[in-house]
Amino acid sequence: MNLPIVLTMGEPAGVGGEIAFKAWLLRREISAPFFLIDDPARLTALAARVGLDVPVVAIDAPEQAAAIFAKALPVLPLPLPGPSEPGRLNPVNAGAVVESIDRAVALVRARRAGAVVTNPIHKYALREAGFRYPGHTEYLAHLAGPEFTPVMMLAGRGLRVVPVTIHMALTAAIAALDTAGIVACGRATAMALTSDFGIEAPRLAVAALNPHGGEGGIMGREEIDIIAPAVVILRREGITALGPAPADTLFHEGARAGYDAVLCMYHDQALIPLKTVDFAGGVNVTLGLPFVRTSPDHGTALDIAGTGRADATSLIAALTLAAEMAARRASHPDGG
Amino acid sequence: MNLPIVLTMGEPAGVGGEIAFKAWLLRREISAPFFLIDDPARLTALAARVGLDVPVVAIDAPEQAAAIFAKALPVLPLPLPGPSEPGRLNPVNAGAVVESIDRAVALVRARRAGAVVTNPIHKYALREAGFRYPGHTEYLAHLAGPEFTPVMMLAGRGLRVVPVTIHMALTAAIAALDTAGIVACGRATAMALTSDFGIEAPRLAVAALNPHGGEGGIMGREEIDIIAPAVVILRREGITALGPAPADTLFHEGARAGYDAVLCMYHDQALIPLKTVDFAGGVNVTLGLPFVRTSPDHGTALDIAGTGRADATSLIAALTLAAEMAARRASHPDGG
Repeated sequence: MNLPIVLTMGEPAGVGGEIAFKAWLLRREISAPFFLIDDPARLTALAARVGLDVPVVAIDAPEQAAAIFAKALPVLPLPLPGPSEPGRLNPVNAGAVVESIDRAVALVRARRAGAVVTNPIHKYALREAGFRYPGHTEYLAHLAGPEFTPVMMLAGRGLRVVPVTIHMALTAAIAALDTAGIVACGRATAMALTSDFGIEAPRLAVAALNPHGGEGGIMGREEIDIIAPAVVILRREGITALGPAPADTLFHEGARAGYDAVLCMYHDQALIPLKTVDFAGGVNVTLGLPFVRTSPDHGTALDIAGTGRADATSLIAALTLAAEMAARRASHPDGG
Repeated sequence: MNLPIVLTMGEPAGVGGEIAFKAWLLRREISAPFFLIDDPARLTALAARVGLDVPVVAIDAPEQAAAIFAKALPVLPLPLPGPSEPGRLNPVNAGAVVESIDRAVALVRARRAGAVVTNPIHKYALREAGFRYPGHTEYLAHLAGPEFTPVMMLAGRGLRVVPVTIHMALTAAIAALDTAGIVACGRATAMALTSDFGIEAPRLAVAALNPHGGEGGIMGREEIDIIAPAVVILRREGITALGPAPADTLFHEGARAGYDAVLCMYHDQALIPLKTVDFAGGVNVTLGLPFVRTSPDHGTALDIAGTGRADATSLIAALTLAAEMAARRASHPDGG
């Protein structure tokens, strides 16, 4: 029996509740049951507001989720201290948003849930609760402990990308590139492709930074000084790594058949191709943690919260992928 | 009657001849006849070598091309001084490669050809002939004269991108960004979309440089200091300009419906999405010249020259687009 997936509340003023309802309505597409850590009263009101026929049932423990899941959306109660109106951030609820993440991680580490899927948070709203992390990834790393180095992967239709630098100005990202960082990302990615994605001999492509891959140093030296040495080290460790490869020729359908994931040097180098080929269905995956974590690859969408127009494609893909990853990790010799 | 399109020789050791043959064999797809400026003897030998049934007929003047085109590939003779072997650069031929471009431009400026399509050159091979330009675009600008500022556009299936900076290391490209340059590109692009692409009220999207568009200055200030002011100026001139928009959300199918072209801040920001959605069929277009010029969006492919394996998709798209642009420019009140 697969353990249930735990889904966090996310920002209650955002679309998290609505997309959870839509995912539950399409629950036959997901290979494991899931439950929310959220406020059952607000969810019941929200379901009525957006006109979705989703019965919400409070549970006392994750172990009850599987039996209820077929008939209702199981919710481990976490009452909100203040009112929650779609589209309107209420600072008084920030602590509960963070607690939902804390409890989800505790459950997955105690093997009472198989994976964590996080609904989008609004990081500025969480500042009220003393939350000082750039996002989920960094906070989850903090909860996991200093011995783990998280790596962000975005997975879409036929394409997995790993940005080596993430939320930094482009000039700062270029300045932050270093051989050791690329190697660490490559190593974590290769391990995860085996343990979580079932790929025994993963092939990494490593993107160049400069146009045409720098043309032998004529248009930038980062390929020669930083990226190529990382490729050499990865290969020496027995990891199949191609590159540095000119980024513009790396993402078309034919090229995608030649690797299992691409190490990208900056945020948009990874996100432009991913969102171009799969805008709605991309999933954010954190590799390198002692538990499986995925999330939809979009924000809180405050502007459409409460209207019933939120697209659950990415959450459904995140739940599906989390279930697959958890099953593989559990069955893998090094995993679980 | 449409004027014929003139196609340059390009690097004779590359795939230019072969893709010209393949384009001629599919000539019914192209709305204007074309002729090469090349060496008829080398072309006849090459056709036999790659096993393509393409009769080559020397012509004395462009005006003869249309009548011959249905039965044979018309070639305005430009004999090569030295032997030409596929895959092997021969420096003695560099002068003829450049002369082919010079003569093509002279013919189109004299209205004896409707547009120039250039076959790929090998810029290092041309150094022998004193050619000191980074590529065709800059050389054509030199031939056109100082009053013209060329702008490079890449056009693929449902996507047109204009890189504001081109062949520079990424750090140098960021340092080179300035409001005036973005405005000049935007203006030239909007004018060309009207005169050459038949779009009366063109809509430009302007890409941001930093992840998430800089998030209000938290991840980089180029949006605030450089790009947004350019958008304001373009709008003040009556040009519909959207942005600066986060680059990762700008290129998926739904987003592409919202604009006619994207101004991109650096080479790969333009080329990654273009080659991801249309790897084989992209066309390089030079806007802002006193004549229509397109080219296939690939290099000389010395490694496969002479094997018969070259893909003519991009050249066929370049010839097709050149014919359409020339017809539109001729019929547009400001054009021709």
